[in-house]
Amino acid sequence: MRYELFYWTGIQGRGEFVRLALEDAGATYVDVARDEGDGIMMTFLGGEQPGTLPFAPPFLRAGKLVLAQTANILAFLAPRHGLVPSSVASKCFALQLQLTIGDMVAEVHDTHHPIAVDQYFEDQRVEARKRAEAFRTQRLPKFIDYFEQVLARGDGRHAIGRNHSYVDLSLFQLLAGLDYAFPLAMKRLRRHTARLRSLSERVAARPRLATYLASPRRIPFNEDGVFRHYPELDDG
Amino acid sequence: MRYELFYWTGIQGRGEFVRLALEDAGATYVDVARDEGDGIMMTFLGGEQPGTLPFAPPFLRAGKLVLAQTANILAFLAPRHGLVPSSVASKCFALQLQLTIGDMVAEVHDTHHPIAVDQYFEDQRVEARKRAEAFRTQRLPKFIDYFEQVLARGDGRHAIGRNHSYVDLSLFQLLAGLDYAFPLAMKRLRRHTARLRSLSERVAARPRLATYLASPRRIPFNEDGVFRHYPELDDG
Repeated sequence: MRYELFYWTGIQGRGEFVRLALEDAGATYVDVARDEGDGIMMTFLGGEQPGTLPFAPPFLRAGKLVLAQTANILAFLAPRHGLVPSSVASKCFALQLQLTIGDMVAEVHDTHHPIAVDQYFEDQRVEARKRAEAFRTQRLPKFIDYFEQVLARGDGRHAIGRNHSYVDLSLFQLLAGLDYAFPLAMKRLRRHTARLRSLSERVAARPRLATYLASPRRIPFNEDGVFRHYPELDDG
Repeated sequence: MRYELFYWTGIQGRGEFVRLALEDAGATYVDVARDEGDGIMMTFLGGEQPGTLPFAPPFLRAGKLVLAQTANILAFLAPRHGLVPSSVASKCFALQLQLTIGDMVAEVHDTHHPIAVDQYFEDQRVEARKRAEAFRTQRLPKFIDYFEQVLARGDGRHAIGRNHSYVDLSLFQLLAGLDYAFPLAMKRLRRHTARLRSLSERVAARPRLATYLASPRRIPFNEDGVFRHYPELDDG
């Protein structure tokens, strides 16, 4: 199967969670918009393409299927590429965790866009500082503690039992994004992230992942993506 | 299978999406916190119970499984109770749509809590008015248009092909919540919601659903839930 991934060029964004799974699996895929430009996605969002109607990128074409929503795409790909154990319990737990990661990513997004997604950060920076402070002091420690507990309740090294899974890849990406966006806040929390950091190092050292991360396909984080580094939103 | 649903007493909230599926399926379930109080959930959130660790309610115990995240619970229940067609394409599309509904519900939540989930509405009402305006003018029409298009691309009456599914139940709940929270904005959009309104009427007339909706188990919407009616956040 040759997959076609559709996501905005120029950012990692939510598409990166799918990209990491495809890369780690050694799957054959084309990052369509990088070849054809972002305009190709409008034909899907405008309903001009067969298959399901996506609300927003990322979406994936797999044969006749068009799948949207990051967690849905990952839940589809994972059992086909050894990225989740085959039991119902494992698949459900993986989706549960990926959805919680997605919730946290949405909250990270809202630190720089607390009022309106279609207005510039500069037009909502006063509110952004308030929301970011609440995120850093309340939500960030709560989510971090949750994922650390999940690892502790397993074998300490994997999200799902003793098995590598797409959730580990997503936790790597989550930590990388948080370190980029909130370096001071994450430094302050460092002694609470031991298991996540150890997992992240193992993920980054996986041969296919290491190759990908060193390649030009891995776009650096920047201030157009979900994880943005605005010093005024980080700890003072 | 006798399910145990865990959700905050006193509100519909995200738990209602699960409740509607259980009720429509005629499944046997206990709404545990309504019998035992909200404290029972703390033993799960605190890691004192076997099974997976939930980040937040709702969660469902099904035998030895503990499942959290609304869309995950629904994706688990649906094939066991005839609430989704059996094809991979249908299951993926259903999850995709449920996740998009969940995204919209999160945005509705943030209209009254744009800064901090753990602060009162009264302490963020200035920002709430701004966020609600952006929601009503940009996001609400966009989401509504999307779901109308999804219905139009199917048989016009169901989200998933020609089949009843949990997504139809969730669209009913979404519309009911939006009508409660934003009656003026929804009235203004009325001619753009024809298919959703027609679907909603059919869902509400399903015998088990009609029984449930008329029962005391269906708590009225109120200002502690996700869908809250604050006139200052609706159209002027």
